[in-house]
Amino acid sequence: MAKHVTVIGAGLVGSLLSIYLSRRGYRVSIYERRPDMRKASISAGRSINLALSDRGIKALEEVGIMDDIRPIAIPMHGRFMHHIDGTHSYQPYGKEGQFINSVSRGELNRKLMDLAEKHGVDIHFNHRCDHVNWNKYEISFTDTEQQRSVTSNQDLIFGSDGAFSAARLSHQLQHDRFQYQQYYIDFGYKELTIPPGPGNSFLMEKNALHIWPRGNYMLIALPNTDGSFTCTLFFPFEGDPSFASLDTPEKARQFFNETFADASAMMPDLEKEFVQNATSSLVTVKCFPWIRGDRFALIGDAAHAIVPFFGQGMNCGFEDCSVLNALMEKHADNWSDILPEYQTLRKPDGDAIADLALNNFVEMRDKVADPTFLLQKKIEASFSMKHPDKWIPAYAQVTFSPHIRYSEALRNGSRQEKIMQKIMAMPDIANRWQDEQVEKMILQELQQQPS
Amino acid sequence: MAKHVTVIGAGLVGSLLSIYLSRRGYRVSIYERRPDMRKASISAGRSINLALSDRGIKALEEVGIMDDIRPIAIPMHGRFMHHIDGTHSYQPYGKEGQFINSVSRGELNRKLMDLAEKHGVDIHFNHRCDHVNWNKYEISFTDTEQQRSVTSNQDLIFGSDGAFSAARLSHQLQHDRFQYQQYYIDFGYKELTIPPGPGNSFLMEKNALHIWPRGNYMLIALPNTDGSFTCTLFFPFEGDPSFASLDTPEKARQFFNETFADASAMMPDLEKEFVQNATSSLVTVKCFPWIRGDRFALIGDAAHAIVPFFGQGMNCGFEDCSVLNALMEKHADNWSDILPEYQTLRKPDGDAIADLALNNFVEMRDKVADPTFLLQKKIEASFSMKHPDKWIPAYAQVTFSPHIRYSEALRNGSRQEKIMQKIMAMPDIANRWQDEQVEKMILQELQQQPS
Repeated sequence: MAKHVTVIGAGLVGSLLSIYLSRRGYRVSIYERRPDMRKASISAGRSINLALSDRGIKALEEVGIMDDIRPIAIPMHGRFMHHIDGTHSYQPYGKEGQFINSVSRGELNRKLMDLAEKHGVDIHFNHRCDHVNWNKYEISFTDTEQQRSVTSNQDLIFGSDGAFSAARLSHQLQHDRFQYQQYYIDFGYKELTIPPGPGNSFLMEKNALHIWPRGNYMLIALPNTDGSFTCTLFFPFEGDPSFASLDTPEKARQFFNETFADASAMMPDLEKEFVQNATSSLVTVKCFPWIRGDRFALIGDAAHAIVPFFGQGMNCGFEDCSVLNALMEKHADNWSDILPEYQTLRKPDGDAIADLALNNFVEMRDKVADPTFLLQKKIEASFSMKHPDKWIPAYAQVTFSPHIRYSEALRNGSRQEKIMQKIMAMPDIANRWQDEQVEKMILQELQQQPS
Repeated sequence: MAKHVTVIGAGLVGSLLSIYLSRRGYRVSIYERRPDMRKASISAGRSINLALSDRGIKALEEVGIMDDIRPIAIPMHGRFMHHIDGTHSYQPYGKEGQFINSVSRGELNRKLMDLAEKHGVDIHFNHRCDHVNWNKYEISFTDTEQQRSVTSNQDLIFGSDGAFSAARLSHQLQHDRFQYQQYYIDFGYKELTIPPGPGNSFLMEKNALHIWPRGNYMLIALPNTDGSFTCTLFFPFEGDPSFASLDTPEKARQFFNETFADASAMMPDLEKEFVQNATSSLVTVKCFPWIRGDRFALIGDAAHAIVPFFGQGMNCGFEDCSVLNALMEKHADNWSDILPEYQTLRKPDGDAIADLALNNFVEMRDKVADPTFLLQKKIEASFSMKHPDKWIPAYAQVTFSPHIRYSEALRNGSRQEKIMQKIMAMPDIANRWQDEQVEKMILQELQQQPS
């Protein structure tokens, strides 16, 4: 065997994929546009802190490296909500023992690069992908340090270079009938920091994802191993308030004091960070095909960039690797069978998680303060507690149920939503939601609605 | 004034736009990727023959050149249908005096180039747009004849370089939050020819658009001034029958003999043409924004490529020019007012005609043989005849009513569709559709439904 594989992009998915491929005996070279983040002091890319959940964990376990990652993952058992009146509330994510994990993108990426190199993977940093010649499957890179051109001609090429993938662009521009869509929401995000307290202590509950929900926008904070929290402000680009309206550090501080008072008190560098840190946009990318014959495939964000409101971007990319691995096994490394099935299997799931994530954005933006919506969620949760075999909430299907495909979770969720619309239309539901009749009606509907 | 304007692309829209701009006193240079089609014997681009209708005519009249175009336009008063059993039927397009016009893209484009040059426009052929520097608004071209680089730095730039616009790509790749979608249908098309009869006579009715509707696919033919007809086969890429299944000239001929017998008998070169002529794809492009500040705009297919099933691609692009002209007048050539309003006005209309054209494709593909659908169209037509002030069929709104915006036509069409759904749900409608009650109900619904 010993096929040569080129992976474009040494991000989270590219690094993990290279480990999977090395384990199966492939000789893997990664080409990465940026310098080595383990040496240079650079940002780990535009990203919020990440929530590693069951799909991602399953993919890390399968390739035998979850034990290496666990030390840098901080369990978060629920949402810790900071209300505008200064009160708090707490919602567990799932049942006892179900949690998601805060990981720093930078730390995780460095770890995965270390592990990849340990597995014999060559990582070429400072190599920008310029172009792929699809007749020869020859990739042209610019070595930006040495200012010279490099070409690589391999048996198999993966484009794991993220939402703005150069590999995808080259694929797109030279492929007839390439379906492509990039869609930006009108919200952006900015990263801010709550530094550690004395002796690297956490200034808030460590094992939770902190949220300051404010209707049209929100601040979140995830714990880091050094005692700090990485905060992300999701905020409209335009309007009032918006990134456009908070156009001085003083206005930002005043807004934070009024809107996120407890967080503001823990952010000594807010003014500096608000000005210096980028305001980043949030894109959804859908495309097709993801592959070319038996020699090229897109994977991770390059194939299906999504908005972060379900915390699934990385988990979905890791699951791509796990699915691909199962297909290598199934088809005994015959890539003319593996790649078409990879695409057939994963494209509907990539589309589904993209839609689920956008739906969650709309939900968070428009519905989170709507009493009817909150009542509906309460009824669903109560029914699910009584009948865990009949009703897994959509969030839990996506986050804690890696055996349910994203596309199934989307379908199940629509079915549940239809049933709940009927329930919510029952007279006086606000007062009668705990009646036995409601439970019976849900059970009845579940039997009638096709699953 | 005498602002310098660069227009990228000397196609139909670029050429017409340059005439509009010259008339207002601008100094216009067009850069065109291809050689001069008036000298070299090259194809006029991938395109079916064109149907020039009222929106396009209005734009040509406004700039005073319709008299130059009329001699190359052949009126088509209705659809001449060739059924599979050898019978014919005829549907007029609209009321007495309403017709569309067959024009050859090549002839029209050459004419518009001649007129542009007459108006003092410089056309630089063999200039491929490589890149636009959006800080300096400097455009880099490759002169492909001389093999040298050329840059142009102008006050104002238009990208009228078609569905696969290089100007748009450069705009897109350097614009944060650029919304973009390209969507291909799974049908392609191929041009074929019915040559003239003896003495350049027409072998079929001259003043009609000929259609061979066959459910899932169709052949059409439009008359040319030389007595020939340009035929276009709209056909699935895959499946049976499809471009993939007709993979030899013999199979193509046999299929035509069986399916389009009368046409086949008039196509001596079918075998040769079927192999030599390209199978082209059909794309819809939606994007936003169309402009940059007061210095750049996309126009025509570059802004809004659509499928040809409403015969509106060119008409829509010509209407863009007419709308832009009205705004130059309104804002006294102040481009910082003109361009934003052009975009605000035209983007919803571009989206609407794209959707209308796709709907027509679905209608033609799935519904044309459905008796319920045909009955619905009959009821609509009959009502419209009685109440022309209350009900203009969607086709006529788009084709013969340039005072109705595409976006209004789409809205009106949805409203009509909702009303017709109720009518079609009436018991025994197939036998009762001429009852007075049906007419009354439509009138009633029209009063109730918001227009």
